[in-house]
Amino acid sequence: MMTVKGRLLGLGVGPGDPELITLKALRLLQAAPVVGYFVAKAKASKGQGGNAFGIIEQHLSEAQQRLPLVYPVTTEKLEPPLTYETVISDFYDTCAAQIALHLDAGRDVAVICEGDPFFYGSYMYLHDRLAERYEAQVIPGVCSMLGGAAVLGVPLVYRNQSLSVLSGVLPEEELKQRLAIADAAVVMKLGRNFDKVRRVLGELGLAERALYVERATMDNQRIVPLDEVEPMDSPYFSLILLPGVKWSA
Amino acid sequence: MMTVKGRLLGLGVGPGDPELITLKALRLLQAAPVVGYFVAKAKASKGQGGNAFGIIEQHLSEAQQRLPLVYPVTTEKLEPPLTYETVISDFYDTCAAQIALHLDAGRDVAVICEGDPFFYGSYMYLHDRLAERYEAQVIPGVCSMLGGAAVLGVPLVYRNQSLSVLSGVLPEEELKQRLAIADAAVVMKLGRNFDKVRRVLGELGLAERALYVERATMDNQRIVPLDEVEPMDSPYFSLILLPGVKWSA
Repeated sequence: MMTVKGRLLGLGVGPGDPELITLKALRLLQAAPVVGYFVAKAKASKGQGGNAFGIIEQHLSEAQQRLPLVYPVTTEKLEPPLTYETVISDFYDTCAAQIALHLDAGRDVAVICEGDPFFYGSYMYLHDRLAERYEAQVIPGVCSMLGGAAVLGVPLVYRNQSLSVLSGVLPEEELKQRLAIADAAVVMKLGRNFDKVRRVLGELGLAERALYVERATMDNQRIVPLDEVEPMDSPYFSLILLPGVKWSA
Repeated sequence: MMTVKGRLLGLGVGPGDPELITLKALRLLQAAPVVGYFVAKAKASKGQGGNAFGIIEQHLSEAQQRLPLVYPVTTEKLEPPLTYETVISDFYDTCAAQIALHLDAGRDVAVICEGDPFFYGSYMYLHDRLAERYEAQVIPGVCSMLGGAAVLGVPLVYRNQSLSVLSGVLPEEELKQRLAIADAAVVMKLGRNFDKVRRVLGELGLAERALYVERATMDNQRIVPLDEVEPMDSPYFSLILLPGVKWSA
């Protein structure tokens, strides 16, 4: 008898507030025999889950198997011939193989993703490796930039304004060019890039319109005026929003 | 005795699938004595609600008051001195005044929004009119572009790629300039703009990478190859996605 293969589920669990998960993601999460989640080495070694895991842990039962996917790369320098690209690619290969074992045995695997799975989520690298061989279903989630706009209380884009979503990792010149022509913008992945991004906004005369939030919708959310942010204290889960100019309809 | 004023709630109800509402939006919706929703004239005159109303109707009780906010503008030509801007502005003023009556009487008003309230949602025009005078809370929702990426099964943006969210209403030349420099893009508000958008994608050599979906996550969702879309049949709730080039981590 052939075993029916399990399904891969990429579940967006929202930006941080556990109540911002969708009914659908919650239903599929609770029905999944295996729950996979990415977690940093430092957290995993203390027996902790990642951010996404913290959001949904309360909904899991004892019977559900936890499958931590522990990132190998920290800020340590890598010795040649190792590069970030090769190490992370091997890591995703290993994760995909672990998940495939469950799928082959007929067990669904739900991989939980902070925000949305296809919007800068690590899940996409598993999807790219597995979706051709297994049934895969993605449940979209509330992304962090919309969580940020909600807690800041500002409309992000009016009417026919264009929105530019940018990574703070971009080179300064590219950031500047893209921000200069943006009607509205969100800059993600700040962390150590904060100072560069704020400088560019200042040079473009946009700093006064820009808003800053750390860990939007989470318990430890912090909203700080842009010019009062300590660049070295800005966490990875922080955002700068440049809302569109108000359309006075 | 002073009446405690009601709260204005802007609730994102997701892209169409009723299960894509968040736990939080559902909880606040069910607790609200008054539920406001935008609806087109043609639908309202047949006693129907709008798209967002259809998503959440099943969750309402008899006791909750329905407050339809009926758009005055149809495709009819307006006689001068009327313009779209003045008519729509008067409409939002009237809606805000209606809602304010409930808020003054101490009743919370939940305004439901397809997708997310601050991401091209009409709610923002009520928020701009009322949030200074009343307590307002916005619950973010799953936006249509992420619903689209999920049902198309394609990661939208990898790693440090930039995402451009564009309105199909933009002039052809601006669309072309913005699409030419986009790593990944979403074009919303297609409808009668479909043909123009497809032509621009073709001229940029991007048509083969682009994907098309109508009413993503809804019951009547349709995924059609871009070159097979009948331009005159493309509904307003359709999207073109230009996913970022796969990063083979």
